[in-house]
Amino acid sequence: MIVAFQGEPGAYSEIAALAYFGEGITTEPCEGFEDIFEKVSKGQCDRGIIPIENSVAGSIYQNCDLLLQFPLEVIGEYYLQVSHCLIGLPGASLENLEKVISHPQALAQSDRFLKSLEGVKYEPVYDTAGSVKIVKEMKNPKVAAIASRRAAEIYGMDILANKIENTAANYTRFQVISRRREDPGKDAKTSIVFAMKNQAGVLYKALSVFALRDIDLTKIESRPLVGKPWDYFFYIDFAGSIFEEKVQRAMANLEEYTTYLRILGSYPRFSFRDLVLGANEGKKDEKTA
Amino acid sequence: MIVAFQGEPGAYSEIAALAYFGEGITTEPCEGFEDIFEKVSKGQCDRGIIPIENSVAGSIYQNCDLLLQFPLEVIGEYYLQVSHCLIGLPGASLENLEKVISHPQALAQSDRFLKSLEGVKYEPVYDTAGSVKIVKEMKNPKVAAIASRRAAEIYGMDILANKIENTAANYTRFQVISRRREDPGKDAKTSIVFAMKNQAGVLYKALSVFALRDIDLTKIESRPLVGKPWDYFFYIDFAGSIFEEKVQRAMANLEEYTTYLRILGSYPRFSFRDLVLGANEGKKDEKTA
Repeated sequence: MIVAFQGEPGAYSEIAALAYFGEGITTEPCEGFEDIFEKVSKGQCDRGIIPIENSVAGSIYQNCDLLLQFPLEVIGEYYLQVSHCLIGLPGASLENLEKVISHPQALAQSDRFLKSLEGVKYEPVYDTAGSVKIVKEMKNPKVAAIASRRAAEIYGMDILANKIENTAANYTRFQVISRRREDPGKDAKTSIVFAMKNQAGVLYKALSVFALRDIDLTKIESRPLVGKPWDYFFYIDFAGSIFEEKVQRAMANLEEYTTYLRILGSYPRFSFRDLVLGANEGKKDEKTA
Repeated sequence: MIVAFQGEPGAYSEIAALAYFGEGITTEPCEGFEDIFEKVSKGQCDRGIIPIENSVAGSIYQNCDLLLQFPLEVIGEYYLQVSHCLIGLPGASLENLEKVISHPQALAQSDRFLKSLEGVKYEPVYDTAGSVKIVKEMKNPKVAAIASRRAAEIYGMDILANKIENTAANYTRFQVISRRREDPGKDAKTSIVFAMKNQAGVLYKALSVFALRDIDLTKIESRPLVGKPWDYFFYIDFAGSIFEEKVQRAMANLEEYTTYLRILGSYPRFSFRDLVLGANEGKKDEKTA
């Protein structure tokens, strides 16, 4: 199985792909998110993995838009706790550091630690794992990168500090995309997007479709429609699968209120509680600066 | 009146401040968003202006968080259509361009145009207006910046191309913050944040508070609580002001379902339709590459 992800080897997306599918897969690095959708659509890759929201930075609208543009199905989700390492050349030391480079998000998410390094400058580059590659090519021990532990290992670099992120509750939600719908089984979630006329109380009517059937919402987000900012798209995730009759009836009911409705896919629900408990335990013995 | 904004002179935030308050104000550049909140809290500035969401990039959670941390009131909103210019030294030309620098968002939002410039590299820097300052200091006509028309004027630079953004529907919503609540008058909006136990149908109950009183929602967004990702914050904007009895009753009713409720503020509703119609008209005579 070939799984497309965005970024260089060692990117957080690749870590999520390996955690979700297991180490037996082949991962295919892509330059941009759109490349993932194209490679999966054309059958060059079997699956794609895309970040959809981050607990610190919010929704990644670019991927929300691509989900609407391509006729692919969401068949899985994965929550990855993002843990940043400061990575330098073998033998590099924190004391002699002059510059730290990484993706702007990684720099922002680690700025409390970075501020503790006096006189060190930061410079944004396009990619976390890519920043490790750049430091390796520069061969300058005074420059360090911020990326995953895996990126340090892939490029044979040293970890100068770990868990440097401001908050332990920094996780990214990924979705897995495929050309074919799959039955997700019993404990499932479904992602949909819809638009409706902007009338008073119309959202309440739409939500009654779920509430009256005891269908639990796990996410709701309104977003102004591109080009028509007084109309809205609603992104909703709810418990249940499109293979269940109750959900099919809810979708038929919802169509009565919507001007647009797209079912992005149904997928097994990620066991979130496990991840977070595990992350909290790991945090007990270590404190960020 | 002194109004704090984030970025260098010529930043989109400064343009929004001048458009909202008029040219008579003094604008105070701040390095980070937190500085805005601190300067307003301490009385060093009278008002602050913060970007809260962008139609392409989504919500700016950092400012949502700061609104909860500081005891300030939201007293205004403004929607600014973001229009990027490619800016170079006087006499610079598109043909000889080798590199374009700007904030990563501005680079991403203009990538269709940038791809039409063959062999040109991009490099992210921290700020749009700041990128113009850098190009000016570099004195290299082969490097250009992406920023506002105002930034080009402030630094005495040439506009090599304008309206280079991918989509005309690229606007940022700003909120104005102050130490004191103000009566917004009749056509108002109110922003609130609340948390509730994650039980089936509880959001529906919360929304009934608005629906049963014919209070129209203009924005809804769920966001996992930091540290408790199975619980949620809900960000809701609705029509009406906290000075109205109907809204006060709705808030008292909402408290029956919430574990946390904060009224961020009530403010005059921005006349959105005007902005968008104007923007579309301006777009008729010009096409991006």
